[in-house]
Amino acid sequence: MSNPSIDAILAHIDAHLDDSRARWFDLLRIPSISAQPAHKQDCIRAAAHARDLLAGMGFEARLAETAGLPGVIATHLKAGAHAPRVLFYGHYDVQPADPLELWHADPFNPQLVDGPHGKRVIARGAVDDKGQVMMVLEAIRASLAVTGRLPVNLTVLLEGEEECGSPSLEAMLNAERHALAADFVLVADTNMWNIDTPAITTSLRGLAAMELKITGPNRDLHSGLFGGPALNPIRALTRILGDLFDENGTIRIPGFYDGITQIPEDVLKSWRATGFDDAAWLGAIGLAHASGEHGRSVLEQNWARPTAEINGIFGGYQGDGSKTVIPAEAGAKLTFRLVPGQDPERVIQGFKHFVTERLLPDARAEFTVFGASAGLTVPIDAPYVVAARHALEAEFGKPPVLAGCGASIPVVEAFERQLGLKTLLVGFGLDDDCIHSPNEKFELRCFHRGMRAEARMLAAFAA
Amino acid sequence: MSNPSIDAILAHIDAHLDDSRARWFDLLRIPSISAQPAHKQDCIRAAAHARDLLAGMGFEARLAETAGLPGVIATHLKAGAHAPRVLFYGHYDVQPADPLELWHADPFNPQLVDGPHGKRVIARGAVDDKGQVMMVLEAIRASLAVTGRLPVNLTVLLEGEEECGSPSLEAMLNAERHALAADFVLVADTNMWNIDTPAITTSLRGLAAMELKITGPNRDLHSGLFGGPALNPIRALTRILGDLFDENGTIRIPGFYDGITQIPEDVLKSWRATGFDDAAWLGAIGLAHASGEHGRSVLEQNWARPTAEINGIFGGYQGDGSKTVIPAEAGAKLTFRLVPGQDPERVIQGFKHFVTERLLPDARAEFTVFGASAGLTVPIDAPYVVAARHALEAEFGKPPVLAGCGASIPVVEAFERQLGLKTLLVGFGLDDDCIHSPNEKFELRCFHRGMRAEARMLAAFAA
Repeated sequence: MSNPSIDAILAHIDAHLDDSRARWFDLLRIPSISAQPAHKQDCIRAAAHARDLLAGMGFEARLAETAGLPGVIATHLKAGAHAPRVLFYGHYDVQPADPLELWHADPFNPQLVDGPHGKRVIARGAVDDKGQVMMVLEAIRASLAVTGRLPVNLTVLLEGEEECGSPSLEAMLNAERHALAADFVLVADTNMWNIDTPAITTSLRGLAAMELKITGPNRDLHSGLFGGPALNPIRALTRILGDLFDENGTIRIPGFYDGITQIPEDVLKSWRATGFDDAAWLGAIGLAHASGEHGRSVLEQNWARPTAEINGIFGGYQGDGSKTVIPAEAGAKLTFRLVPGQDPERVIQGFKHFVTERLLPDARAEFTVFGASAGLTVPIDAPYVVAARHALEAEFGKPPVLAGCGASIPVVEAFERQLGLKTLLVGFGLDDDCIHSPNEKFELRCFHRGMRAEARMLAAFAA
Repeated sequence: MSNPSIDAILAHIDAHLDDSRARWFDLLRIPSISAQPAHKQDCIRAAAHARDLLAGMGFEARLAETAGLPGVIATHLKAGAHAPRVLFYGHYDVQPADPLELWHADPFNPQLVDGPHGKRVIARGAVDDKGQVMMVLEAIRASLAVTGRLPVNLTVLLEGEEECGSPSLEAMLNAERHALAADFVLVADTNMWNIDTPAITTSLRGLAAMELKITGPNRDLHSGLFGGPALNPIRALTRILGDLFDENGTIRIPGFYDGITQIPEDVLKSWRATGFDDAAWLGAIGLAHASGEHGRSVLEQNWARPTAEINGIFGGYQGDGSKTVIPAEAGAKLTFRLVPGQDPERVIQGFKHFVTERLLPDARAEFTVFGASAGLTVPIDAPYVVAARHALEAEFGKPPVLAGCGASIPVVEAFERQLGLKTLLVGFGLDDDCIHSPNEKFELRCFHRGMRAEARMLAAFAA
């Protein structure tokens, strides 16, 4: 921010907004839907388009082949050995556009329309993630145009399979670990707090996913002829799951809360400063009470506390009316959202113990674990986080919210596990952008200020 | 039994067993599958065949038209005003025969084959209920042949829709209430205790069937972005259902056990005399422990105690793997088996109260009641029950087991509700007869002794 050229870069961004938008639209016009094999060539075309954009800006750019759709890797390593090395990650693929009939225009023919915050762009990928990627690339372009250089050594990685579960990402990170070497990862795929307030996501919850199956009799039984003496696995299952929470919403699994790290005071202060309206948030989903641990706010319950969620339950007859059956088995799908400090393996073992000690006689429990990842945190006093906080405050006139995120972001987990890298999550989407839905949009104002903020952050990282 | 002609009747039955079997086979050859519209004419043919058989024996016999398949009503009211009036009920329709490939022969071409108990007859309907109906009709034929009269005033009612839920039965009972007037109903559609031991079913459990649906948020939610503060209806549901039983297997619904009548000492004695093997019964269904109220035997739990059975449970994701969803709703199907003395309406209200007082904040409960019927009992000291007990003991050399039945038999309920009649359930099937399954069979020995026992009972009713 002490970089004397930043004002010139911001002025350049302002002056060339239409050009930036035009390039953004070019990328939006390519229907790079990774989930649909019919769009495979469009995806490859989008990758090549991005590669060429980056090459045109002076990057060494190439496609990185994978078992699936290619990644784009581009490096610009001319800032000197003492400048930080930044890995920017985004994705060029988009979600399918259907249901098409709900779109007001062709999802791959971007529209500039009026909205309550000025102009907005409507297209599939407008924000997720082509808009945010182009915002960063245009900030880089402006820096290069004004100063002839970049303040940091920069590697750009664009993935082509983010919207279909990133099946090739981990192998690519592993194969390209030398090309992707960096001090940290910068990702632009999240939201602002609101249109006037930036946000950095400093913690993500991890996820342990399991299935529990309870078996009882050796076959389905008639509930008249066998009911009473015959064990009903649904009874055994509900007896266990019904005991998962105590009266205060605390999860009863032994050792579940062990190791949870304290939320830094700066972060709590930032949450309080948002003036977040618990009642409004709950009201929007038809609820009036926060169901988690009593005495904790919505933000704490969602961002900083773990959950035990029964995502599905099944057993016996589910059709119309009634059927007099005692099923041979019943089961449930569970996920545990984990916060930093919790050991996923310990949570899984604790749940198995919790179930086993509550089994009715003759009931047997089978567990299937679908995966487990720990909660992640970005150290808010790391130099790149401090730099981002200052850059965002300079652009928006107020400090960013140091937000948590109740969900997991698999790529962040992959960077941490495969490359040992922390991820700085700063994005400029809004909650109402309709990502994955018809009429996805990105406010031009968010795109514009996002470009400015990205330019400021690049400069600040090197300060 | 003091009827001096009974020995002659039994001798007649023994001497004409082949003729009886031939007439039984004639009825088995008609594929009267009530559930399959393609067999409608076969059903009508079976009804006409039965009517003609009865008319040929001196009954006033006719088809009773219904909205569906006809009933057969035949009366033989020549025993005098002081003789008891008996309504014999059976059904001429049969279950579908598929899967056909599992039958060793054409299901409608009855086979006489060797088995461990001598000859047995294999055909669809061999026992259920054509075999048991013909067993009764042949006992009547023998009585008429030997004595020229019947000891009771007898009405025969054969239904044609028993295997598809008896949709027209109640209307027919109501329309024909004068023709069907009787002192009690005799039904031959149940089993013996074992091949050497007869049984009278003296109690049936009733049934209240419901669905409970719990709703929470106004739509399905992402369990990362909303999990913690957002109410999960599966949690609310399992919390309620998990509390349905205490540690002793007792059902916690308020007032649930109110009004239950004591089991007569004679009945308990009869159960003890069976030497019923709880461990073997449980072992056959893969279990080792009786799950009902602690301290009660399998027979008590199944015959004499009520149940709360969760027949189905559903909510959220049920496919492969995992899905991070908090569903908007979850639900369960429940049936309550009721024993004599319990008020079905009170049980339903008690369950609603039980649910309502355990609802988490913001959870809403919706109830759908699919029907409710009380448990039924036959007074074991009624003259016709006493007569049947003596007749069965005379035939088998041991008293019948006064069995309960954990299931409901809708026709028994219909006779009680529509006509105010108690039902005497005496049947000669065996548990391994494969009713409703491929290779349904009826032991010739059971058919033969069943005919003899029916002839003895008819005589005994009048004694």
